Amino acid sequence: MPNLPLSTVLSLSNAQIVIEIAATVAFAMSGLLEAARKRLDAIGVVMVAGLTAFGGGTLRDVLLDRRPFFWVEHSNWLWLLLAVCACAMAFLRAQHFAPTERAMQWPDALGLGLFTATGTQIALDASMPAIVAVVMGMMTAAFGGVLRDIVCNEIPRAFSDHQPYAICAFVGAWVIVVSEALQAPDWLVLTLGAGTTVLLRMLAIRTGWKLPGWRA
Amino acid sequence: MPNLPLSTVLSLSNAQIVIEIAATVAFAMSGLLEAARKRLDAIGVVMVAGLTAFGGGTLRDVLLDRRPFFWVEHSNWLWLLLAVCACAMAFLRAQHFAPTERAMQWPDALGLGLFTATGTQIALDASMPAIVAVVMGMMTAAFGGVLRDIVCNEIPRAFSDHQPYAICAFVGAWVIVVSEALQAPDWLVLTLGAGTTVLLRMLAIRTGWKLPGWRA
Amino acid sequence: MPNLPLSTVLSLSNAQIVIEIAATVAFAMSGLLEAARKRLDAIGVVMVAGLTAFGGGTLRDVLLDRRPFFWVEHSNWLWLLLAVCACAMAFLRAQHFAPTERAMQWPDALGLGLFTATGTQIALDASMPAIVAVVMGMMTAAFGGVLRDIVCNEIPRAFSDHQPYAICAFVGAWVIVVSEALQAPDWLVLTLGAGTTVLLRMLAIRTGWKLPGWRA
Repeated sequence: MPNLPLSTVLSLSNAQIVIEIAATVAFAMSGLLEAARKRLDAIGVVMVAGLTAFGGGTLRDVLLDRRPFFWVEHSNWLWLLLAVCACAMAFLRAQHFAPTERAMQWPDALGLGLFTATGTQIALDASMPAIVAVVMGMMTAAFGGVLRDIVCNEIPRAFSDHQPYAICAFVGAWVIVVSEALQAPDWLVLTLGAGTTVLLRMLAIRTGWKLPGWRA
Repeated sequence: MPNLPLSTVLSLSNAQIVIEIAATVAFAMSGLLEAARKRLDAIGVVMVAGLTAFGGGTLRDVLLDRRPFFWVEHSNWLWLLLAVCACAMAFLRAQHFAPTERAMQWPDALGLGLFTATGTQIALDASMPAIVAVVMGMMTAAFGGVLRDIVCNEIPRAFSDHQPYAICAFVGAWVIVVSEALQAPDWLVLTLGAGTTVLLRMLAIRTGWKLPGWRA
Repeated sequence: MPNLPLSTVLSLSNAQIVIEIAATVAFAMSGLLEAARKRLDAIGVVMVAGLTAFGGGTLRDVLLDRRPFFWVEHSNWLWLLLAVCACAMAFLRAQHFAPTERAMQWPDALGLGLFTATGTQIALDASMPAIVAVVMGMMTAAFGGVLRDIVCNEIPRAFSDHQPYAICAFVGAWVIVVSEALQAPDWLVLTLGAGTTVLLRMLAIRTGWKLPGWRA
């Protein structure tokens, strides 16, 4: 089904919807925890959580000139965001922050894989060159976190903590580009690309692998 | 006149133009004062003042894919901005900063109300869902200040100072959405929505009401 | 040839291509060095270098609603960026940072002139008013560096170091606007505008001229 829009094919897949919700919640939670650490107020918590969850895809769509945004077309996501923030502010206390963050690593890794894969495929569908599609895929998955850190007045963790994050997305996005060029069916392209990213990210977490920095 | 574009109806209203100018100057002044405190140079002062005054509406228009921007269609606003900055740099001294800031609270509150109302209405006219229109209204009014603080290397005050600001816009924007759904005439929608926001903001300033943060 | 698109005329000019490459490398290097000083990892180095090199023109194109972006149409620039970053990380050591920065001042000044001129002309071609075209020209040349500093958690140098940078672009952009209004041929418009900016910037570097700040 190579000519069908990706979303049509994917709408068949309930697994994907579950992953998407889990991953979006994980992204929102990472914004939420950062906002809590910085002692932001209720408005700040919601804004930073929303920026982290939806910022990457929105930036990609602005750059590709695509409308409507995901969170405009499916505005229920915004209600979900509000609900997550309200629950977290009601029940989450300082001693839960570290365990929550550890628990979120796994849905976050799934999100990194899924959003990289769909972002890259969307860019390819818009006839972008391979390298541009790869950049768009990375942005989709990693730039929510970058915006979160900029707003919270930190150097983006994805650029500075030497832990492989965007680089896993980079490799997975190339898998998408190559398997798309080989005309693999869409479900296989998606599975290979997302799977590669998720696997690399999980390996990176388990092994503590470090990205090279500057040998000064 | 529900089918007329908002701007046509509003252009009849001289009161609105006066409020708009006063509010834009107030927004620009808040950027200016922040820039002065950070000891930026002349270019930085103008840039931060302009970003604060026009950043929120511009971000909304980028997200809604609307062109031309307000400050492109009416480029005299940019000359006004330059004039305000030149006057301020010539006459405003450190001892005037605090009183200026206090004096600006009131036109700033008017701007919060007016820009929230017009921003929400513009999003509704573009067929956005209610919750998205509310977010767009808040952004229009509050994100100029957010961009000001990001550029000045601070955590955005609107997210962190626990004073009700964006939340007043949030409530006012819902008033717009509801009264629009009830098919109230445009002037009434605008007056109710902007009035609610302004009233709440003024109450918040007078009573020192605090937004909840995280109970850590 | 006033009705020909600028790019058609310019594609004849090999000198311009050489300047463009040298200037883009200089912009990327300034991002690279900042990233190195902040001890970012490999991903951060590439991202900040790319943002510095392409951010200004991309922001202009988003505001003017132009697509495709320069780096999408000519995606080889992204490969060049990767190559520059790889070479720099392999060979550049801390003791080279200061001399590299000094050496980069000159291609950077050429880039300031060239990108201001082309940015202003692109905005004029899109029927922007004069003051808006001037702002767009300045943004094209100076906002890559602004984004670099925001991501690296610094107040933008262009706004705070009191050294004339964007102001040189401001003057050069007005030269473009005026000579365009006088219907000078495109090559002359470009040469006068870019030349003015470059000359002012070089004078500013040589004489140590300081921008006025706030007399507090």
